[in-house]
Amino acid sequence: MAQVLRGDLLAREIEEELRGRVAAMEAPPTLAVVLVGDDPASHIYVSRKRKAAARVGITSIEHRLPAATDEAQLLALIGALNDDPGVHGILVQLPLPAGMAADRVLDAIAPGKDVDGFHPVNVGRLSTGGQGGLVPCTPLGCMLLLDQVVEDFRGLKAVVIGKSNIVGKPAALLLLERECTVTVTHIHTRGLPEICRGADIIIAAAGVAHLVRGDWVKPGAIIIDVGINRIPAPDSRPMIVGDVAAEECDHAAVITPVPGGVGPMTIACLLRNTLDAAQRR
Amino acid sequence: MAQVLRGDLLAREIEEELRGRVAAMEAPPTLAVVLVGDDPASHIYVSRKRKAAARVGITSIEHRLPAATDEAQLLALIGALNDDPGVHGILVQLPLPAGMAADRVLDAIAPGKDVDGFHPVNVGRLSTGGQGGLVPCTPLGCMLLLDQVVEDFRGLKAVVIGKSNIVGKPAALLLLERECTVTVTHIHTRGLPEICRGADIIIAAAGVAHLVRGDWVKPGAIIIDVGINRIPAPDSRPMIVGDVAAEECDHAAVITPVPGGVGPMTIACLLRNTLDAAQRR
Repeated sequence: MAQVLRGDLLAREIEEELRGRVAAMEAPPTLAVVLVGDDPASHIYVSRKRKAAARVGITSIEHRLPAATDEAQLLALIGALNDDPGVHGILVQLPLPAGMAADRVLDAIAPGKDVDGFHPVNVGRLSTGGQGGLVPCTPLGCMLLLDQVVEDFRGLKAVVIGKSNIVGKPAALLLLERECTVTVTHIHTRGLPEICRGADIIIAAAGVAHLVRGDWVKPGAIIIDVGINRIPAPDSRPMIVGDVAAEECDHAAVITPVPGGVGPMTIACLLRNTLDAAQRR
Repeated sequence: MAQVLRGDLLAREIEEELRGRVAAMEAPPTLAVVLVGDDPASHIYVSRKRKAAARVGITSIEHRLPAATDEAQLLALIGALNDDPGVHGILVQLPLPAGMAADRVLDAIAPGKDVDGFHPVNVGRLSTGGQGGLVPCTPLGCMLLLDQVVEDFRGLKAVVIGKSNIVGKPAALLLLERECTVTVTHIHTRGLPEICRGADIIIAAAGVAHLVRGDWVKPGAIIIDVGINRIPAPDSRPMIVGDVAAEECDHAAVITPVPGGVGPMTIACLLRNTLDAAQRR
Protein backbone atom coordinates (compact mmCIF):
# COMPACT_ATOMS: atom_id res chain seq x y z
CA MET A 1 0.00 0.00 0.00
CA ALA A 2 1.20 3.50 -0.81
CA GLN A 3 1.80 5.84 2.10
CA VAL A 4 -0.97 8.45 2.21
CA LEU A 5 0.71 11.82 2.73
CA ARG A 6 -1.89 13.89 4.52
CA GLY A 7 -1.73 17.58 3.77
CA ASP A 8 -4.39 18.35 6.33
CA LEU A 9 -2.16 17.05 9.14
CA LEU A 10 0.94 18.85 7.87
CA ALA A 11 -1.08 22.06 7.42
CA ARG A 12 -2.14 21.78 11.06
CA GLU A 13 1.50 21.50 12.14
CA ILE A 14 2.40 24.53 10.04
CA GLU A 15 -0.48 26.51 11.52
CA GLU A 16 0.76 25.57 14.99
CA GLU A 17 4.20 26.94 14.14
CA LEU A 18 2.71 30.10 12.62
CA ARG A 19 0.55 30.64 15.70
CA GLY A 20 3.76 30.66 17.74
CA ARG A 21 5.39 33.15 15.40
CA VAL A 22 2.36 35.46 15.50
CA ALA A 23 2.23 35.29 19.30
CA ALA A 24 5.85 36.43 19.44
CA MET A 25 5.14 39.52 17.33
CA GLU A 26 4.31 42.93 18.78
CA ALA A 27 1.14 43.11 16.73
CA PRO A 28 -0.51 40.47 14.54
CA PRO A 29 -0.05 40.82 10.77
CA THR A 30 -2.97 41.87 8.61
CA LEU A 31 -4.08 40.21 5.40
CA ALA A 32 -6.35 42.16 3.05
CA VAL A 33 -8.53 39.94 0.88
CA VAL A 34 -10.19 41.53 -2.12
CA LEU A 35 -13.18 39.75 -3.62
CA VAL A 36 -14.86 41.14 -6.72
CA GLY A 37 -18.25 39.83 -7.81
CA ASP A 38 -20.18 36.83 -6.61
CA ASP A 39 -18.52 33.69 -7.91
CA PRO A 40 -19.80 31.08 -5.41
CA ALA A 41 -16.55 29.08 -5.36
CA SER A 42 -14.57 32.25 -4.68
CA HIS A 43 -16.79 33.01 -1.70
CA ILE A 44 -16.09 29.54 -0.30
CA TYR A 45 -12.32 29.93 -0.79
CA VAL A 46 -12.28 33.36 0.81
CA SER A 47 -14.26 32.12 3.78
CA ARG A 48 -11.78 29.24 4.27
CA LYS A 49 -8.87 31.66 4.17
CA ARG A 50 -10.56 33.93 6.70
CA LYS A 51 -11.13 31.06 9.11
CA ALA A 52 -7.57 29.82 8.73
CA ALA A 53 -6.17 33.32 9.35
CA ALA A 54 -8.26 33.56 12.51
CA ARG A 55 -6.92 30.20 13.75
CA VAL A 56 -3.30 31.43 13.68
CA GLY A 57 -4.05 34.96 14.88
CA ILE A 58 -3.65 36.81 11.57
CA THR A 59 -6.11 39.67 11.18
CA SER A 60 -7.96 39.43 7.89
CA ILE A 61 -9.92 42.26 6.33
CA GLU A 62 -12.26 41.57 3.45
CA HIS A 63 -13.02 44.07 0.73
CA ARG A 64 -16.04 42.92 -1.25
CA LEU A 65 -16.70 44.79 -4.45
CA PRO A 66 -19.71 44.31 -6.73
CA ALA A 67 -19.19 42.51 -10.05
CA ALA A 68 -19.89 45.83 -11.80
CA THR A 69 -16.80 47.47 -10.23
CA ASP A 70 -14.58 48.94 -12.88
CA GLU A 71 -10.88 48.18 -13.05
CA ALA A 72 -9.86 51.71 -12.08
CA GLN A 73 -11.75 51.43 -8.80
CA LEU A 74 -10.10 48.09 -8.05
CA LEU A 75 -6.67 49.53 -8.88
CA ALA A 76 -7.36 52.48 -6.59
CA LEU A 77 -8.21 50.11 -3.74
CA ILE A 78 -5.01 48.12 -4.35
CA GLY A 79 -3.02 51.36 -4.36
CA ALA A 80 -4.50 52.33 -1.00
CA LEU A 81 -3.72 48.87 0.45
CA ASN A 82 -0.15 49.09 -0.92
CA ASP A 83 0.32 52.41 0.88
CA ASP A 84 -1.30 51.30 4.14
CA PRO A 85 1.48 50.35 6.60
CA GLY A 86 -1.09 48.40 8.61
CA VAL A 87 -1.62 45.94 5.73
CA HIS A 88 1.06 43.25 5.34
CA GLY A 89 -0.41 40.99 2.70
CA ILE A 90 -2.82 41.59 -0.18
CA LEU A 91 -4.72 38.85 -1.97
CA VAL A 92 -7.05 39.47 -4.90
CA GLN A 93 -9.23 36.41 -5.28
CA LEU A 94 -9.26 35.07 -8.83
CA PRO A 95 -11.03 34.76 -11.20
CA LEU A 96 -11.94 38.40 -11.75
CA PRO A 97 -15.18 39.30 -13.53
CA ALA A 98 -15.02 39.43 -17.34
CA GLY A 99 -13.58 42.68 -18.62
CA MET A 100 -10.92 43.00 -15.95
CA ALA A 101 -7.36 42.13 -16.93
CA ALA A 102 -5.95 39.91 -14.19
CA ASP A 103 -2.36 40.71 -15.20
CA ARG A 104 -2.83 44.46 -14.84
CA VAL A 105 -4.48 43.95 -11.47
CA LEU A 106 -1.82 41.54 -10.16
CA ASP A 107 0.95 43.85 -11.44
CA ALA A 108 -0.48 46.63 -9.28
CA ILE A 109 0.05 44.77 -5.98
CA ALA A 110 3.26 45.79 -4.20
CA PRO A 111 5.59 42.76 -4.65
CA GLY A 112 6.41 42.72 -0.93
CA LYS A 113 2.70 42.33 -0.06
CA ASP A 114 1.90 39.91 -2.89
CA VAL A 115 1.17 36.84 -0.74
CA ASP A 116 -0.10 34.88 -3.75
CA GLY A 117 3.32 35.24 -5.42
CA PHE A 118 1.80 36.19 -8.79
CA HIS A 119 3.50 39.57 -9.33
CA PRO A 120 6.13 39.44 -12.13
CA VAL A 121 8.88 40.38 -9.67
CA ASN A 122 8.03 37.40 -7.46
CA VAL A 123 7.64 35.11 -10.48
CA GLY A 124 11.01 36.33 -11.76
CA ARG A 125 12.74 35.70 -8.42
CA LEU A 126 11.32 32.20 -8.33
CA SER A 127 12.49 31.56 -11.89
CA THR A 128 16.06 32.70 -11.28
CA GLY A 129 16.28 31.03 -7.87
CA GLY A 130 16.80 34.44 -6.26
CA GLN A 131 16.05 35.02 -2.61
CA GLY A 132 13.47 37.26 -1.02
CA GLY A 133 10.50 36.59 -3.27
CA LEU A 134 7.09 35.26 -2.27
CA VAL A 135 6.34 31.82 -3.77
CA PRO A 136 2.85 30.87 -5.04
CA CYS A 137 0.99 28.95 -2.34
CA THR A 138 -0.03 25.74 -4.12
CA PRO A 139 3.40 24.81 -5.53
CA LEU A 140 5.00 25.83 -2.22
CA GLY A 141 2.57 23.47 -0.48
CA CYS A 142 3.56 20.70 -2.92
CA MET A 143 7.23 21.20 -2.07
CA LEU A 144 6.62 21.15 1.68
CA LEU A 145 4.74 17.87 1.22
CA LEU A 146 7.58 16.43 -0.86
CA ASP A 147 10.06 17.55 1.80
CA GLN A 148 8.31 15.14 4.18
CA VAL A 149 9.25 12.13 2.09
CA VAL A 150 12.22 13.07 -0.12
CA GLU A 151 15.65 13.55 1.39
CA ASP A 152 17.64 14.30 -1.72
CA PHE A 153 15.91 15.57 -4.86
CA ARG A 154 19.10 15.67 -6.94
CA GLY A 155 18.68 13.83 -10.21
CA LEU A 156 15.17 12.55 -9.51
CA LYS A 157 12.91 12.61 -12.55
CA ALA A 158 9.91 14.83 -11.93
CA VAL A 159 6.96 15.10 -14.28
CA VAL A 160 4.60 18.04 -13.89
CA ILE A 161 1.21 17.68 -15.57
CA GLY A 162 -0.20 21.10 -16.41
CA LYS A 163 1.64 24.31 -17.18
CA SER A 164 -0.47 26.97 -15.49
CA ASN A 165 1.14 30.06 -14.00
CA ILE A 166 -0.47 29.21 -10.67
CA VAL A 167 0.74 25.62 -10.27
CA GLY A 168 2.53 23.86 -13.12
CA LYS A 169 5.22 26.36 -14.11
CA PRO A 170 6.17 27.48 -10.60
CA ALA A 171 6.20 23.85 -9.39
CA ALA A 172 8.55 22.95 -12.27
CA LEU A 173 10.87 25.83 -11.37
CA LEU A 174 10.93 24.81 -7.70
CA LEU A 175 11.75 21.21 -8.61
CA LEU A 176 14.50 22.42 -10.93
CA GLU A 177 15.93 24.52 -8.11
CA ARG A 178 16.22 21.29 -6.12
CA GLU A 179 18.16 19.72 -9.03
CA CYS A 180 15.44 17.40 -10.30
CA THR A 181 15.31 16.61 -13.99
CA VAL A 182 11.95 18.17 -14.82
CA THR A 183 9.52 17.47 -17.65
CA VAL A 184 6.54 19.79 -18.04
CA THR A 185 3.57 18.26 -19.84
CA HIS A 186 0.18 19.62 -20.84
CA ILE A 187 -2.80 19.23 -23.11
CA HIS A 188 -0.64 19.07 -26.25
CA THR A 189 1.75 16.46 -24.86
CA ARG A 190 1.90 13.20 -26.79
CA GLY A 191 2.55 9.93 -24.98
CA LEU A 192 1.82 11.24 -21.50
CA PRO A 193 1.36 7.77 -19.94
CA GLU A 194 4.84 6.72 -21.07
CA ILE A 195 6.36 9.99 -19.83
CA CYS A 196 4.71 9.51 -16.44
CA ARG A 197 5.98 5.93 -16.22
CA GLY A 198 9.52 7.31 -16.13
CA ALA A 199 8.82 9.63 -13.20
CA ASP A 200 10.11 9.37 -9.64
CA ILE A 201 7.83 12.29 -8.74
CA ILE A 202 4.53 13.20 -10.41
CA ILE A 203 2.80 16.50 -9.73
CA ALA A 204 -0.65 16.22 -11.30
CA ALA A 205 -2.22 19.62 -11.86
CA ALA A 206 -4.27 19.13 -15.00
CA GLY A 207 -7.72 19.62 -13.54
CA VAL A 208 -8.97 16.39 -15.14
CA ALA A 209 -10.63 13.84 -12.86
CA HIS A 210 -8.70 10.56 -12.69
CA LEU A 211 -6.44 11.46 -15.62
CA VAL A 212 -3.46 9.57 -14.20
CA ARG A 213 -4.16 5.84 -14.15
CA GLY A 214 -2.38 3.20 -12.12
CA ASP A 215 -0.43 1.91 -15.11
CA TRP A 216 1.05 5.40 -15.67
CA VAL A 217 2.79 5.17 -12.32
CA LYS A 218 6.00 3.25 -11.75
CA PRO A 219 6.39 1.24 -8.56
CA GLY A 220 7.82 3.43 -5.81
CA ALA A 221 6.84 6.76 -7.37
CA ILE A 222 5.75 9.74 -5.29
CA ILE A 223 2.50 11.36 -6.40
CA ILE A 224 1.29 14.83 -5.47
CA ASP A 225 -2.30 15.23 -6.62
CA VAL A 226 -3.22 18.89 -7.03
CA GLY A 227 -6.53 18.25 -8.79
CA ILE A 228 -9.83 19.22 -7.17
CA ASN A 229 -12.54 17.99 -9.53
CA ARG A 230 -16.26 17.71 -8.91
CA ILE A 231 -17.82 14.63 -10.47
CA PRO A 232 -21.36 13.25 -10.23
CA ALA A 233 -21.65 10.57 -7.56
CA PRO A 234 -24.08 7.65 -7.34
CA ASP A 235 -26.21 9.40 -4.70
CA SER A 236 -26.34 12.45 -7.02
CA ARG A 237 -24.39 14.80 -4.73
CA PRO A 238 -21.16 15.73 -6.55
CA MET A 239 -17.98 14.12 -5.25
CA ILE A 240 -14.53 15.73 -5.06
CA VAL A 241 -11.78 13.70 -6.72
CA GLY A 242 -8.21 14.38 -7.77
CA ASP A 243 -6.36 14.10 -11.08
CA VAL A 244 -5.08 10.66 -10.09
CA ALA A 245 -6.99 7.38 -9.92
CA ALA A 246 -5.62 6.83 -6.42
CA GLU A 247 -7.30 3.45 -5.91
CA GLU A 248 -5.15 2.09 -8.78
CA CYS A 249 -1.90 3.37 -7.25
CA ASP A 250 -1.16 0.94 -4.42
CA HIS A 251 2.25 0.34 -5.99
CA ALA A 252 3.25 4.01 -5.58
CA ALA A 253 5.45 4.80 -2.58
CA VAL A 254 3.52 7.90 -1.55
CA ILE A 255 0.33 9.64 -2.66
CA THR A 256 -1.51 12.72 -1.41
CA PRO A 257 -5.26 12.31 -0.88
CA VAL A 258 -8.01 14.48 -2.36
CA PRO A 259 -9.49 16.11 -0.37
CA GLY A 260 -7.08 16.56 2.53
CA GLY A 261 -3.89 16.76 0.50
CA VAL A 262 -2.64 19.83 -1.34
CA GLY A 263 -5.77 21.92 -0.65
CA PRO A 264 -5.14 22.56 3.06
CA MET A 265 -1.43 23.13 2.33
CA THR A 266 -2.30 25.94 -0.08
CA ILE A 267 -4.07 27.82 2.69
CA ALA A 268 -1.32 27.14 5.24
CA CYS A 269 1.22 28.52 2.75
CA LEU A 270 -0.87 31.65 2.24
CA LEU A 271 -0.70 32.28 5.98
CA ARG A 272 3.03 31.57 5.98
CA ASN A 273 3.57 34.04 3.13
CA THR A 274 1.58 36.67 5.02
CA LEU A 275 3.77 36.23 8.08
CA ASP A 276 6.95 36.26 5.97
CA ALA A 277 5.79 39.44 4.24
CA ALA A 278 5.10 41.10 7.59
CA GLN A 279 8.41 40.06 9.12
CA ARG A 280 10.54 41.04 6.12
CA ARG A 281 9.33 44.62 6.29
CA MET B 1 23.21 15.19 -44.35
CA ALA B 2 21.67 17.45 -41.76
CA GLN B 3 20.69 20.95 -42.85
CA VAL B 4 23.14 23.45 -41.41
CA LEU B 5 21.07 26.31 -40.00
CA ARG B 6 23.34 29.32 -40.20
CA GLY B 7 22.78 31.90 -37.51
CA ASP B 8 25.24 34.29 -39.12
CA LEU B 9 23.08 34.54 -42.24
CA LEU B 10 19.84 34.93 -40.29
CA ALA B 11 21.49 37.54 -38.05
CA ARG B 12 22.46 39.50 -41.17
CA GLU B 13 18.83 39.45 -42.35
CA ILE B 14 17.66 40.64 -38.94
CA GLU B 15 20.24 43.41 -38.95
CA GLU B 16 18.98 44.46 -42.38
CA GLU B 17 15.45 44.71 -41.04
CA LEU B 18 16.62 46.61 -37.95
CA ARG B 19 18.59 49.03 -40.12
CA GLY B 20 15.33 49.83 -41.91
CA ARG B 21 13.50 50.35 -38.62
CA VAL B 22 16.24 52.65 -37.31
CA ALA B 23 16.25 54.66 -40.54
CA ALA B 24 12.52 55.26 -40.15
CA MET B 25 12.94 56.67 -36.64
CA GLU B 26 13.31 60.37 -35.88
CA ALA B 27 16.51 59.72 -33.99
CA PRO B 28 18.54 56.54 -33.60
CA PRO B 29 18.18 54.64 -30.30
CA THR B 30 21.03 54.65 -27.82
CA LEU B 31 22.44 51.61 -26.06
CA ALA B 32 24.55 52.15 -22.94
CA VAL B 33 27.04 49.35 -22.31
CA VAL B 34 28.62 49.17 -18.88
CA LEU B 35 31.85 47.21 -18.54
CA VAL B 36 33.45 46.79 -15.13
CA GLY B 37 37.01 45.50 -14.84
CA ASP B 38 39.22 43.94 -17.43
CA ASP B 39 37.99 40.45 -18.19
CA PRO B 40 39.46 39.86 -21.68
CA ALA B 41 36.47 37.87 -22.97
CA SER B 42 34.12 40.63 -21.83
CA HIS B 43 36.13 43.19 -23.77
CA ILE B 44 35.80 41.06 -26.91
CA TYR B 45 32.03 40.66 -26.42
CA VAL B 46 31.53 44.37 -25.82
CA SER B 47 33.54 45.24 -28.89
CA ARG B 48 31.38 42.89 -31.02
CA LYS B 49 28.23 44.48 -29.67
CA ARG B 50 29.55 47.96 -30.43
CA LYS B 51 30.38 47.04 -34.02
CA ALA B 52 26.99 45.39 -34.53
CA ALA B 53 25.18 48.42 -33.12
CA ALA B 54 27.12 50.64 -35.51
CA ARG B 55 26.12 48.44 -38.47
CA VAL B 56 22.40 48.98 -37.86
CA GLY B 57 22.69 52.63 -36.84
CA ILE B 58 22.19 52.24 -33.08
CA THR B 59 24.32 54.65 -31.06
CA SER B 60 26.31 52.82 -28.42
CA ILE B 61 27.96 54.49 -25.46
CA GLU B 62 30.47 52.57 -23.37
CA HIS B 63 31.03 53.16 -19.69
CA ARG B 64 34.24 51.47 -18.61
CA LEU B 65 34.77 51.26 -14.87
CA PRO B 66 37.88 49.93 -13.16
CA ALA B 67 37.72 46.54 -11.44
CA ALA B 68 38.08 48.34 -8.10
CA THR B 69 34.77 50.22 -8.60
CA ASP B 70 32.48 49.68 -5.65
CA GLU B 71 28.91 48.53 -6.08
CA ALA B 72 27.45 51.86 -4.94
CA GLN B 73 29.26 53.69 -7.74
CA LEU B 74 27.98 51.20 -10.29
CA LEU B 75 24.44 51.51 -8.92
CA ALA B 76 24.70 55.30 -9.13
CA LEU B 77 25.72 55.06 -12.79
CA ILE B 78 22.80 52.71 -13.52
CA GLY B 79 20.45 55.13 -11.76
CA ALA B 80 21.67 57.97 -13.95
CA LEU B 81 21.25 55.87 -17.11
CA ASN B 82 17.73 54.87 -15.99
CA ASP B 83 16.83 58.54 -15.63
CA ASP B 84 18.44 59.65 -18.89
CA PRO B 85 15.70 59.93 -21.55
CA GLY B 86 18.41 59.77 -24.21
CA VAL B 87 19.32 56.19 -23.19
CA HIS B 88 16.98 53.48 -24.49
CA GLY B 89 18.82 50.31 -23.54
CA ILE B 90 21.23 49.45 -20.72
CA LEU B 91 23.49 46.43 -20.71
CA VAL B 92 25.83 45.57 -17.85
CA GLN B 93 28.36 43.09 -19.19
CA LEU B 94 28.67 40.00 -17.01
CA PRO B 95 30.55 38.62 -15.16
CA LEU B 96 31.05 41.40 -12.62
CA PRO B 97 34.21 41.49 -10.53
CA ALA B 98 34.18 39.43 -7.32
CA GLY B 99 32.42 41.22 -4.48
CA MET B 100 29.65 42.68 -6.61
CA ALA B 101 26.25 41.00 -6.41
CA ALA B 102 25.02 40.56 -9.99
CA ASP B 103 21.41 40.24 -8.84
CA ARG B 104 21.42 43.57 -6.99
CA VAL B 105 23.01 45.24 -10.02
CA LEU B 106 20.60 43.69 -12.55
CA ASP B 107 17.62 44.54 -10.29
CA ALA B 108 18.65 48.20 -10.46
CA ILE B 109 18.21 48.48 -14.24
CA ALA B 110 14.85 49.93 -15.26
CA PRO B 111 12.89 46.94 -16.68
CA GLY B 112 11.96 48.90 -19.82
CA LYS B 113 15.65 49.50 -20.60
CA ASP B 114 16.83 46.01 -19.60
CA VAL B 115 17.83 44.79 -23.08
CA ASP B 116 19.42 41.64 -21.64
CA GLY B 117 16.05 40.62 -20.19
CA PHE B 118 17.58 39.67 -16.82
CA HIS B 119 15.50 41.94 -14.53
CA PRO B 120 13.02 39.96 -12.38
CA VAL B 121 10.08 41.79 -13.98
CA ASN B 122 11.20 40.68 -17.46
CA VAL B 123 11.96 37.16 -16.23
CA GLY B 124 8.52 37.06 -14.61
CA ARG B 125 6.75 38.21 -17.79
CA LEU B 126 8.57 35.55 -19.77
CA SER B 127 7.61 32.90 -17.23
CA THR B 128 3.91 33.77 -17.22
CA GLY B 129 3.76 34.29 -20.98
CA GLY B 130 2.78 37.91 -20.43
CA GLN B 131 3.34 40.53 -23.08
CA GLY B 132 5.58 43.56 -23.04
CA GLY B 133 8.70 42.10 -21.46
CA LEU B 134 12.20 41.96 -22.91
CA VAL B 135 13.39 38.39 -23.57
CA PRO B 136 17.01 37.30 -22.94
CA CYS B 137 18.99 37.46 -26.18
CA THR B 138 20.43 33.96 -26.47
CA PRO B 139 17.18 32.00 -25.96
CA LEU B 140 15.38 34.52 -28.17
CA GLY B 141 17.99 33.83 -30.85
CA CYS B 142 17.41 30.09 -30.44
CA MET B 143 13.68 30.54 -30.97
CA LEU B 144 14.17 32.68 -34.09
CA LEU B 145 16.42 29.95 -35.48
CA LEU B 146 13.83 27.28 -34.67
CA ASP B 147 11.15 29.41 -36.34
CA GLN B 148 13.08 28.97 -39.59
CA VAL B 149 12.59 25.22 -39.58
CA VAL B 150 9.60 24.40 -37.34
CA GLU B 151 6.08 25.24 -38.43
CA ASP B 152 4.14 23.89 -35.50
CA PHE B 153 5.81 23.35 -32.15
CA ARG B 154 2.72 21.90 -30.49
CA GLY B 155 3.46 18.60 -28.80
CA LEU B 156 7.07 18.37 -29.97
CA LYS B 157 9.41 16.96 -27.36
CA ALA B 158 12.11 19.48 -26.50
CA VAL B 159 15.09 18.72 -24.30
CA VAL B 160 17.08 21.62 -22.90
CA ILE B 161 20.54 20.78 -21.58
CA GLY B 162 21.58 23.27 -18.93
CA LYS B 163 19.40 25.26 -16.54
CA SER B 164 21.13 28.63 -16.37
CA ASN B 165 19.14 31.81 -15.92
CA ILE B 166 20.71 33.16 -19.10
CA VAL B 167 19.90 30.31 -21.48
CA GLY B 168 18.44 27.06 -20.17
CA LYS B 169 15.53 28.23 -18.06
CA PRO B 170 14.30 31.02 -20.38
CA ALA B 171 14.65 28.71 -23.40
CA ALA B 172 12.54 26.09 -21.61
CA LEU B 173 9.86 28.68 -20.82
CA LEU B 174 9.79 29.91 -24.44
CA LEU B 175 9.42 26.34 -25.74
CA LEU B 176 6.64 25.71 -23.23
CA GLU B 177 4.88 28.85 -24.43
CA ARG B 178 4.89 27.29 -27.91
CA GLU B 179 3.26 24.15 -26.45
CA CYS B 180 6.27 21.85 -26.61
CA THR B 181 6.63 19.15 -23.99
CA VAL B 182 9.80 20.35 -22.31
CA THR B 183 12.40 18.48 -20.27
CA VAL B 184 15.10 20.50 -18.54
CA THR B 185 18.29 18.57 -17.81
CA HIS B 186 21.54 19.52 -16.10
CA ILE B 187 24.62 18.27 -14.34
CA HIS B 188 22.61 16.13 -11.90
CA THR B 189 20.48 14.49 -14.60
CA ARG B 190 20.77 10.72 -14.86
CA GLY B 191 20.44 8.97 -18.21
CA LEU B 192 20.88 12.10 -20.32
CA PRO B 193 21.69 10.18 -23.55
CA GLU B 194 18.41 8.28 -23.33
CA ILE B 195 16.47 11.48 -22.56
CA CYS B 196 18.04 13.19 -25.59
CA ARG B 197 17.20 10.23 -27.82
CA GLY B 198 13.51 10.99 -27.25
CA ALA B 199 13.84 14.63 -28.33
CA ASP B 200 12.46 16.27 -31.46
CA ILE B 201 14.35 19.42 -30.50
CA ILE B 202 17.58 19.62 -28.48
CA ILE B 203 18.89 22.90 -27.13
CA ALA B 204 22.40 22.20 -25.87
CA ALA B 205 23.60 24.84 -23.44
CA ALA B 206 25.79 22.91 -21.04
CA GLY B 207 29.10 24.54 -21.86
CA VAL B 208 30.79 21.14 -22.30
CA ALA B 209 32.64 20.53 -25.55
CA HIS B 210 31.09 17.71 -27.62
CA LEU B 211 28.87 16.55 -24.76
CA VAL B 212 26.07 15.45 -27.11
CA ARG B 213 27.20 12.50 -29.23
CA GLY B 214 25.67 11.27 -32.45
CA ASP B 215 23.98 8.30 -30.79
CA TRP B 216 22.14 10.68 -28.40
CA VAL B 217 20.29 12.17 -31.37
CA LYS B 218 17.31 10.55 -33.03
CA PRO B 219 17.04 10.65 -36.82
CA GLY B 220 15.29 13.82 -37.91
CA ALA B 221 15.93 15.79 -34.71
CA ILE B 222 16.59 19.53 -34.71
CA ILE B 223 19.66 20.60 -32.76
CA ILE B 224 20.43 24.10 -31.53
CA ASP B 225 24.00 24.18 -30.23
CA VAL B 226 24.51 27.07 -27.81
CA GLY B 227 27.92 25.95 -26.60
CA ILE B 228 31.02 28.03 -27.27
CA ASN B 229 33.93 26.02 -25.92
CA ARG B 230 37.64 26.56 -26.46
CA ILE B 231 39.58 23.33 -26.84
CA PRO B 232 43.26 22.76 -27.67
CA ALA B 233 43.76 22.11 -31.36
CA PRO B 234 46.51 20.12 -33.11
CA ASP B 235 48.34 23.27 -34.20
CA SER B 236 48.18 24.48 -30.57
CA ARG B 237 45.89 27.47 -31.21
CA PRO B 238 42.65 26.82 -29.33
CA MET B 239 39.64 25.87 -31.42
CA ILE B 240 36.01 26.90 -30.80
CA VAL B 241 33.57 24.00 -30.67
CA GLY B 242 29.99 23.54 -29.56
CA ASP B 243 28.31 21.24 -27.05
CA VAL B 244 27.40 18.83 -29.83
CA ALA B 245 29.68 16.46 -31.77
CA ALA B 246 28.23 17.82 -35.01
CA GLU B 247 30.29 15.52 -37.27
CA GLU B 248 28.41 12.55 -35.74
CA CYS B 249 24.98 14.08 -36.40
CA ASP B 250 24.42 13.61 -40.13
CA HIS B 251 21.16 11.84 -39.28
CA ALA B 252 19.74 14.95 -37.60
CA ALA B 253 17.35 17.04 -39.71
CA VAL B 254 18.88 20.37 -38.75
CA ILE B 255 21.88 21.55 -36.74
CA THR B 256 23.32 24.97 -35.99
CA PRO B 257 27.06 25.38 -36.52
CA VAL B 258 29.60 26.65 -33.97
CA PRO B 259 30.81 29.27 -34.65
CA GLY B 260 28.26 30.99 -36.88
CA GLY B 261 25.13 29.64 -35.19
CA VAL B 262 23.61 30.98 -32.00
CA GLY B 263 26.45 33.45 -31.28
CA PRO B 264 25.62 35.99 -34.01
CA MET B 265 21.91 35.61 -33.22
CA THR B 266 22.52 36.66 -29.62
CA ILE B 267 23.97 39.96 -30.80
CA ALA B 268 21.21 40.50 -33.37
CA CYS B 269 18.62 39.95 -30.64
CA LEU B 270 20.36 42.46 -28.38
CA LEU B 271 19.98 45.06 -31.12
CA ARG B 272 16.37 44.05 -31.65
CA ASN B 273 15.65 44.40 -27.94
CA THR B 274 17.25 47.85 -27.94
CA LEU B 275 15.01 48.96 -30.78
CA ASP B 276 11.94 47.41 -29.16
CA ALA B 277 12.78 49.18 -25.89
CA ALA B 278 13.14 52.51 -27.70
CA GLN B 279 9.93 52.12 -29.68
CA ARG B 280 7.80 51.01 -26.72
CA ARG B 281 8.59 54.17 -24.81
